[in-house]
Amino acid sequence: MTQETIFARLNTLLERNQMNKMHGALLMLNVVDIAEFMEELEANRLLKFFRILPKDIAADVFAYLDSEKQQELIELISDGEINDLIDDMYLDDTVDFLEELPAVVVHRILQNTNAEKRELINRFLKYPANSAGSIMTIEYAELQENSTVAQAIETLRKTGLDKETIYTCYVIGTGRQLLGFVELRHLILAKPDEIMTNIMNSNVISVKTTDDRETVADLVRKYDLLSLPVTDNEGRLVGIVTVDDIIDVLDAENTEDMELMRGLLPSDDEYMKTPVATLFAKRIPWLLILMVSATFTGMIITHFSDVLSTTGRLGVLLTACLPMLMDTGGNCGSQSSTLVIRSMALGQIGFTDFFQVWWREVRVAFLVGLTLCVANVARQLLLYTFTDGVTIDTVTVTFVVSFAMFLTVIIAKSLGCILPLFAKKIKLDPAIMAGPIITTIVDACALTILFTIATKFM
Amino acid sequence: MTQETIFARLNTLLERNQMNKMHGALLMLNVVDIAEFMEELEANRLLKFFRILPKDIAADVFAYLDSEKQQELIELISDGEINDLIDDMYLDDTVDFLEELPAVVVHRILQNTNAEKRELINRFLKYPANSAGSIMTIEYAELQENSTVAQAIETLRKTGLDKETIYTCYVIGTGRQLLGFVELRHLILAKPDEIMTNIMNSNVISVKTTDDRETVADLVRKYDLLSLPVTDNEGRLVGIVTVDDIIDVLDAENTEDMELMRGLLPSDDEYMKTPVATLFAKRIPWLLILMVSATFTGMIITHFSDVLSTTGRLGVLLTACLPMLMDTGGNCGSQSSTLVIRSMALGQIGFTDFFQVWWREVRVAFLVGLTLCVANVARQLLLYTFTDGVTIDTVTVTFVVSFAMFLTVIIAKSLGCILPLFAKKIKLDPAIMAGPIITTIVDACALTILFTIATKFM
Repeated sequence: MTQETIFARLNTLLERNQMNKMHGALLMLNVVDIAEFMEELEANRLLKFFRILPKDIAADVFAYLDSEKQQELIELISDGEINDLIDDMYLDDTVDFLEELPAVVVHRILQNTNAEKRELINRFLKYPANSAGSIMTIEYAELQENSTVAQAIETLRKTGLDKETIYTCYVIGTGRQLLGFVELRHLILAKPDEIMTNIMNSNVISVKTTDDRETVADLVRKYDLLSLPVTDNEGRLVGIVTVDDIIDVLDAENTEDMELMRGLLPSDDEYMKTPVATLFAKRIPWLLILMVSATFTGMIITHFSDVLSTTGRLGVLLTACLPMLMDTGGNCGSQSSTLVIRSMALGQIGFTDFFQVWWREVRVAFLVGLTLCVANVARQLLLYTFTDGVTIDTVTVTFVVSFAMFLTVIIAKSLGCILPLFAKKIKLDPAIMAGPIITTIVDACALTILFTIATKFM
Repeated sequence: MTQETIFARLNTLLERNQMNKMHGALLMLNVVDIAEFMEELEANRLLKFFRILPKDIAADVFAYLDSEKQQELIELISDGEINDLIDDMYLDDTVDFLEELPAVVVHRILQNTNAEKRELINRFLKYPANSAGSIMTIEYAELQENSTVAQAIETLRKTGLDKETIYTCYVIGTGRQLLGFVELRHLILAKPDEIMTNIMNSNVISVKTTDDRETVADLVRKYDLLSLPVTDNEGRLVGIVTVDDIIDVLDAENTEDMELMRGLLPSDDEYMKTPVATLFAKRIPWLLILMVSATFTGMIITHFSDVLSTTGRLGVLLTACLPMLMDTGGNCGSQSSTLVIRSMALGQIGFTDFFQVWWREVRVAFLVGLTLCVANVARQLLLYTFTDGVTIDTVTVTFVVSFAMFLTVIIAKSLGCILPLFAKKIKLDPAIMAGPIITTIVDACALTILFTIATKFM
């Protein structure tokens, strides 16, 4: 049966109130699919459906609902049910979900949670946004340094099912110090009376709660980890970050980079769920800054206006090439900045590679500039053959524009690699340097170059 | 000890030829770090160092070397060593590594591999680029449908350490049909005499060998999987894709999107390892296309040149606003296209949301256009106060430009969402529609609007 057929069947059963017949259909669905099905239900059915979910999956399903639906459901269920739900949910999911709720709802939920859990939640809510602490979970498997393999396996049997992952178990000392890790596959193959310190790998990679989530993602990517332990400032194990959350981090970081590269203020919200006013607010700041900075390009044109007006038709022909010149410059610059920014994000280059990167870009720019130059001479002369005719004047315009373009390409590609590298050096996000800023600077350069050459030759 | 100190110590030991003292230092390093250390060694030391690596990690370390270093090493070691290496490596790593080598080296390696492995490698090399088959591994844990828990655990004990992951075990029927999966954590908790069909989860998510790697990544992301089974067209299990490879896929897909959005032909190569000629070849096609298409914007300007030349100073003032108008239009359009493309890539919107998306963009464009319009009136009037003075003429220019900008913003944002959605509909990569193309189209629109309004009012 396809997912659609199962959804249809569930809907029919809901309509006929045959809740007892639902379990068969539910068994064919993953918790993610069940959450997807629930997204479409209105309040009355949502509550009925949620209440027949098997207890062992209800919390998982809830964690996969989007935050609006979570809030809707929370407002429908009883205090007792809230308590059960929070009890069954992984702490990182609970915190994610609470962060999206209005304060009054959070208050009600925390009131219905036991003191210990409440304290934990409050501590988690205080980790800085985008820190390792804010994305970690406390449902990890820990083993004491002096316990035997047999004892360890017994511990995992008892508590393993409540842990987010038991595939990498962390070994801690008496003060909860993180000492090493043991993979479950090695544990089940080890001799029962071996003790942890002898079989563990003490070469353990970890982060601190305050480290940035990007650092966490970089380590998971580099070392192909399934989970990464998080310690406090004293080196005590306090949580783990699992790889599924890292995939979300990577998605978020990439979205952020793409948004910054296009002059958008980044946010974690889904496009379709962001109010129009917020979309507006994300976009207008950079547009205003760039519009105002375009005053300079305007002033350059006005400044050279004498050249333009005395040359009559020549001025018009020169003006007609402005969009081509500026767009080519902008495109060249943003090509370079995109490659450099992306390589930095993937940890392939850094500020120390400055001269190597710049020298590559200059060589590429030379080739690109030369090719475009030749192509443009051909293009403009062909155009003039059918319009103004090929005269000394049009040939001059052609060569002035082409030469200006060559220089613009060299400058654009140089800026395209230099600006992001410098941004990184002064701890700015390099992605900001990609798009609109470079375009604006390159525009100003292109115009100055063009008019300087034009005043020399025309 | 920090990684640097360990690297320094290894170098000293290598220099003094004290290979027997190295094991202590090696124990403190992860295979990824050891590979990083080897990247810096020249041929002689590289070979010496590789030969003292403990046999159980040599293949892993080799898999993490970059392809140039892999090739260098392969040319140094003996045929017997090649055979051992290929034997110990996971098949997906072997295939990745062979794909980067010159044919003659591949030939030598395949000659030194046993027939069975050679056939497997050849089959893998034939999977289409970027398909599930090309990124899967065959080192997965499979269990027979009728085996008991005790038998299953025994099988895993015997073969588990050679598998890339045994945390999700796949249950197959007599014809190797994929029937379900069992998580290791559930397996070790189950009664020893239960048979697989009773404890397995038959709701298994899988892909076919020919499915695109993006499909695989989407499923892993959606269902938070650690591995995903791959079947042939008859539903027989042939491999799995693990989450660490999915992270690489996500990185590659994001790089590809960013490159396409900036008019670059995408490639999987690292920036610093790409020859200048290749970098040139990645960039020049779109630059040429866009330069040639800028002929139209040039023609629009020439066409309206009569308006410009008869108005004298007014024409100059109008021309001075062209960069601002075109850049603002381009920025608005690419903001919208970036958000829409990203939401499509994350599976949040599709072509069916067309009207909803467009209606959102129109409302945002209205707010953005109005704000920019007001800001521009203020900006231009302020500028004229200090230059040409606020006269009927300059006020007219101000309002003509501002009104043209308002309309340009509406068009730019509409195109910014419509073009990527249509691209998806006709099976093009939406990312192509983001940057340069939209800029060029919006430029042409902006100029036509400006001059049409200008001829009406001036």
